[in-house]
Parts: sequence; structure tokens; C-alpha cells
Amino acid sequence: MPNKLHRQVVVIGGGFGGLAVTRALARTAVQVTLVDRRNHHLFQPLLYQVAMAGLSPAEIAVPIRSVLRRQKNARVLLADAIRIDTATRRVVLREAPPLAYDFLVVATGALTSYFGHEEWRDVAPGLKDIEDAVDIRRRVLLAFEAAEREPDAEARRRHLTFVVIGGGPTGVELAGAIAELASYVLARDFRAINPESTRVVLLEGGPRILNTFAPQLSDRALRSLAGMGVEVRTDALVTQIDDDGVLLGGERIRAGTVLWAAGVAAAPLPQDLPAPVDRTGRALVERDCSLPGHPEIFCIGDAAAFVPAAGKNPLPGVSPVAMQQGRFVARQIGRRIDGRPMATFVYRDKGSMATIGRSRAVAEIGKVRLSGFLAWLIWLLIHIYYLVDFRNRTFVIINWAWSYLTYRRGARLITGRDQSKRSTSDGRVP
Amino acid sequence: MPNKLHRQVVVIGGGFGGLAVTRALARTAVQVTLVDRRNHHLFQPLLYQVAMAGLSPAEIAVPIRSVLRRQKNARVLLADAIRIDTATRRVVLREAPPLAYDFLVVATGALTSYFGHEEWRDVAPGLKDIEDAVDIRRRVLLAFEAAEREPDAEARRRHLTFVVIGGGPTGVELAGAIAELASYVLARDFRAINPESTRVVLLEGGPRILNTFAPQLSDRALRSLAGMGVEVRTDALVTQIDDDGVLLGGERIRAGTVLWAAGVAAAPLPQDLPAPVDRTGRALVERDCSLPGHPEIFCIGDAAAFVPAAGKNPLPGVSPVAMQQGRFVARQIGRRIDGRPMATFVYRDKGSMATIGRSRAVAEIGKVRLSGFLAWLIWLLIHIYYLVDFRNRTFVIINWAWSYLTYRRGARLITGRDQSKRSTSDGRVP
Repeated sequence: MPNKLHRQVVVIGGGFGGLAVTRALARTAVQVTLVDRRNHHLFQPLLYQVAMAGLSPAEIAVPIRSVLRRQKNARVLLADAIRIDTATRRVVLREAPPLAYDFLVVATGALTSYFGHEEWRDVAPGLKDIEDAVDIRRRVLLAFEAAEREPDAEARRRHLTFVVIGGGPTGVELAGAIAELASYVLARDFRAINPESTRVVLLEGGPRILNTFAPQLSDRALRSLAGMGVEVRTDALVTQIDDDGVLLGGERIRAGTVLWAAGVAAAPLPQDLPAPVDRTGRALVERDCSLPGHPEIFCIGDAAAFVPAAGKNPLPGVSPVAMQQGRFVARQIGRRIDGRPMATFVYRDKGSMATIGRSRAVAEIGKVRLSGFLAWLIWLLIHIYYLVDFRNRTFVIINWAWSYLTYRRGARLITGRDQSKRSTSDGRVP
Repeated sequence: MPNKLHRQVVVIGGGFGGLAVTRALARTAVQVTLVDRRNHHLFQPLLYQVAMAGLSPAEIAVPIRSVLRRQKNARVLLADAIRIDTATRRVVLREAPPLAYDFLVVATGALTSYFGHEEWRDVAPGLKDIEDAVDIRRRVLLAFEAAEREPDAEARRRHLTFVVIGGGPTGVELAGAIAELASYVLARDFRAINPESTRVVLLEGGPRILNTFAPQLSDRALRSLAGMGVEVRTDALVTQIDDDGVLLGGERIRAGTVLWAAGVAAAPLPQDLPAPVDRTGRALVERDCSLPGHPEIFCIGDAAAFVPAAGKNPLPGVSPVAMQQGRFVARQIGRRIDGRPMATFVYRDKGSMATIGRSRAVAEIGKVRLSGFLAWLIWLLIHIYYLVDFRNRTFVIINWAWSYLTYRRGARLITGRDQSKRSTSDGRVP
């Protein structure tokens, strides 16, 4: 039970930001309640590996309760924070009585955005949570299965065409991973089709892929993808997506599977959060990550638009920003309790990287630009290092070593009620 | 493409029976096509471990394609076999052209049966496939989460009450595993509730649990369960199951979670299969596992009722029967092609076992009866040995060793669209 002598901190969201602020408040004289609608923290950078059947969901997700089990001043509630009552300083939950707070941290993350084309959501899934990843895995594996039993060559070709929309890191990772899945992993498993005839098309609306990286790295990534058989098309503006594929103005690409990696927006903030928002729904925050006029409410990570200096772009929606802001906000809460003035958040950019496939990546660390195997090795070590839980780390290492050595994939399961529904309608299970 | 000079064997179902017959036909002069509605073979004996968050789905399931990748005379089709045309010897598929056969093996397995009470299916899920297991995992973990945020003591008690219906091996395994999950695994994770106050009730309609085992082993199992805090009630006839729990005649047990392990029936056979069936829908087969009047059609495993001698009970629905029948049928197909007479199937009962929890089990091997740690160790070794795939075997060993040493659980994820649907209806993701 919360100790009434201590200040109450409520954190909404158990992603990188929410977990960082909670952990950084350990051994301080506050009580922290972390509220999340899901019971698990998700290691999002490896989510594409679940979508591509390389890892199991449990290998990249860990119960938030488990992460915080030894932190005595923290408790975890699985609940939906629907509204903020700033007058009484309470968070209204859907499933439980309201939570009083002295400090509130909103770390509600981002969702896939279709820029107003909501009708594309069903035909071109995005990749933001475990269910998305399992759905994409199901679609990609079912496409190969459909091709295997298809007698018509034209229809078979359509089943084996995969379009990925969006040339950022996620799109590049997905396109590369589909090409690999087809050529190495599934190659010997099929009889009627040749998985190497798979066509993977990566569409980017701007002039180059990985446009937050240096142009030379975009170029390297382009050549790596081309070497793996991925068709990359830049300045490609998608005007329609439907069951038959995509339209680029007048040109149709017939494809059985279309994946969306072209945009995210902030998840809807709790109602009545007193925050101005930008056009992607992010709360505009002060230099100390608090909301204007509400020094007791902070907003961090993908939920916030933090502008480091007048006229500059907001910080990017990446996990290091969320984690650094989380630790920063924990320190500010301590300062506020001690009556000290607020500091200004300064982001330390340690670099960025994107992986393109088995043993290829690009990385930009300060002025150092790397590509190829060395960049991939660094990518691998950093990702394993940051996996939250000891057990996950071990499992991922074993799983990757196994996949790397054998070219097989461990989690090639087609699961999900979609398929079952279709078939239980007549109760038949052959 | 199938070689027209070879006889065509079609196998429906990639469970223990279907896989056994297919593998036993390797290096014979036939072409085998294995048809399954799912892409994976499931190691059902460990399914309760997925339901109890001990293992991930991919650790007990392996793509059928992967198992058969090196078997040159086998191909795999992900398809739904809806009808048998015995006149033209074809299997009609929902998604692809019909398959011609010279020999047909029906190995379509079993489903959960509610004995006519279909309305119980939604409130008391059974455990037959991966989706069932993930659903049960979600319900059990959500019950603890609901209790954690529940201020009312009476409601909290209801959330922490779990009823398992059916005192066979699956029911015993589930009841024991819930008790363990609560007392060891979740014990330190919660703040407001004490998971040790969990109430687990195992209901058996007959006079003793594990009634296919010797009475002394039923007794041992009963005492083991009691020692773990499980309430076992025999001669308990459930008259109603609803959202509030179960009714036993006039007595109500209020429970947030009810699980069904009380019955299975054969999965619906393909239409027009020329087979008489028993009251649980199993095809009555001849002594060579063929259908009466159709020596070219075999039915094995849970889909068949094989009566070893007049007046005897049919063989039980366990994996050794299915696997032995699979290998037997493969030999009969060879004999038939060579013009030799059919043999009679003889089941070699190598014993049976049930596990009760971490380090307790009961086993009956011929006249030898074992219980306790030794039985559990034998159970463990046999199950690991029979896991189909090298990789799964390694993973399960590591996962179990880790769980055993640390008392933690690796796969405690609450996933599934049920929860997401509720929350995306208002687009909110905190």
C-alpha cells in the first residue's frame, strides 16, 4: 500500500521512457505507480524479427511486473488511463479507482499512422505491437503457402510479391528480412514454387531511403538491398492500397502482401491532459519536459514533441530520447521536491543504425560512418546489451546463433483466430 | 511434381499419426501429400506449459514443412480437406484443386467436447491448440492483474479462484500448474494481493482422479495436489458454467476463471468419408486400421475407434497409439502394393504418466508404478526425447532449467486481439 508520507508519482506507459523514469526513481523518497494497458514491456527495435519469424514474442517482451519486482517503491497496474483530472490531481482509470498524483509522467508512445487513409489499415498492417508482428508473420507465411498450392502462374507471382511502404529503418529491415526469409530460409521447404522467385519492392516517397542518415549510407543500404534482390523505388507516392496491391499514380504493382512502415503518430493522449499538440498529436513540452503551466506533469518519448532550440526540429521518436528523458525527469522530480530549480534537457545523440539483413547494417556514430559486417556486429552487440532481461538476452543470442548457423527460422508459426474462424465456421479440422 | 508412375498417398492431418505415417513412407516408391489446415505440428503433451506461461508457442510447435524438408517423396499443402470422393478417389480441398489418391490416411485428431453444452465453450475454454493455450494464459494472468487493482475483498477472492473441470491428466496438470504459478512464480510480483491466497479447485465427475491409472497412483496424485493447496472434489457433477463460476447442483463456486479438461471428441471427419462412427464421432475401423469395405482408406489416432478384440474398449486417444498406427499403416501400404495380405494392428502399451507440478508425477509402466521425483524425471526425459525438432528440444531444456532454478516464467505475456479490440474502440493506448 502506498505510504501517505511519500509523494505519489504516476507514470502512464511501460515503454522505454516510462520504465526509465520508474527505475531511476528507485531509492528516492517517492511512491511510483506505473500504469500500462499491456502487461509487458516490448523491445520494439527487434519487433521486425518477430514479424519475420526469427524470434518468438516472449523473447522480446518481458512482464513489466517482473522488471520491477525488486523495486520496493514501485507498483504496476494493468489498466487504461482514460482521463487526467488536473484540478484534483487524479488519473482516472477504466478498470479501477482513480489514482492521486503529485507528479505525473505521460509516456504513452506512438501508433502507426496512415495519414488519414484509415481504410489502408486492414490491407497494409503496420508494426507497433506483438499482435501486429504475429499478424504480419501470418500474412507473409500464408503468402508462400498460397503460392505453393496455386496452379496459375500469374496468381502465383502475385502471391510471391511483397511491397513494403516506407524507406526508414523499419521498412529497410522488413524488406531485407523478407528477401532473406525467401532465399535462405524457405528455399528448400517448398516443392511447387521456388521461393527465390519472390519479388520484394520497397517504396519510399522521398528521394532516398534512410533519409535521417548521411547520403553515403543511404547509398550503401540501397546497394545492399539491391544485392539481396530487393527493388527499391524512391520518389514513389502511393495513391491507393487494396487487396490486389498498390497504385503509384497510374502504375499498379500487383502484390499479395503489403506492409506499412511509412508513418507513426503519437498515441491518443489521455483526455483533458492540458497540453498543446503538434500535427502528429505529440504534446509540445517545455525545456524541462513538463507541460506549459503544469510543472507537475511531464511528457516524454514518442508522446512528446521536444524542440531543443527555437527553429529546430523536434527530437526524433527513438528509444534513446525516451530513455534519456525518463532519467532526466526522475532527476527533476527529485529537484522539485528539494525546492531546487529545473534543468534543461539535453539529448546526447550516441548515433543511429539500421540493419539490412544477415550480416549487413549501416551505422552513424558521431562523425563515424560504418556499413557492412562491422556495422552489423555493432548493431547486434548493442541490441543484445539493451535487452531488458537476462533471460531474454540469453535466448535471443541462442536463437540468433542457431538461425545464423542453420539458416532456419525458429518461430515460423501461422497462428491467430482469423484462420481458425474461417475454418471453425463449419467445424472442420482436418 | 508428383511422379505419375508412383502410387499417390494422401495423408490428412499433421499430428502425431499423420506425421508418423508420412515419415515411415520415406524411401518407399510412393508420393505422399500431407494436407493440414495448420502449418505446424504441435507437441500437444506440453501444451499446458504454454497455457501456464512456462513455454512459448514456438517451443512446442514446428512447421510441418520443416520436419519433412529432406523427405524427397513428401510434399505439404496448407489446405482444408472438406470432402472425399471415393468413386474417383479424390480429396476435395477448399483452397486448391482436388488431390487424387491411391491410398488415403485420415488422421484428423480430436477437439474439445462440451457434451452438448456448447454455451460453455466461451466461459470455460478447453486446451487443444496454440490459440487455446494463449487464450488460457491470457485469462489466468489477467485474473491476477484484476485482483491486484480490485479494492473489494469479495471480488478479489473471486478473481483469485480458479476452477479446473476434469480430473484426467490434462486437468491434473493444469490445476497443479496454476497452484505453482501462484505460489512460486507470481508471489513476489504483486503488491496489493497475495498470490498465495489463490484458490484452485479441481472437479472430477467420477469417484477418483486419473481414473485410467491404478488406484494407488490416483491416491498419490490426490495427496500431491492437496500438498500444493489444490482442492480436489470427486463425484462433482457440474450443472452450469457462467461468468460467475460453476454450479454443482445447488452449490455455487464463485470463480473468475474456469477451464475445461473434461472431454474430447473426434474432429469432424471429411464429408462423405464412408465410415460408421461411434458416439464421439470416431470412425470404426477394421483390425488393419482400414475402413470397412475400403481397404485403400485408413483412419488412425484420435479420429479412429480401434477395438482390439470383440467386447473390449477402443484404444485410448493418446499419441503412442497414433504414432504406432501411423507406422503400421505405412507398412500395410507397402504390403498392399506388393500384393501381400494385411496384418492386424497390435498396440504396444509402453505405459502412461501424468505430471503434477515441479518435480512430481505419477507413472505406470507395465506393472511398475512410480510417483514423486523419479516419475517426474522420467516424464521429463521422455517428453524432451520426443520433441520433434532438435532446436525445440534444446530450447525447452534451457527454458525448463531456467524456470526450475529461478522460479520465474519466461512467457508471461498477455496478448491477443480481445484486449486490443476493447481498447482500440476508443483509439486509446496509454
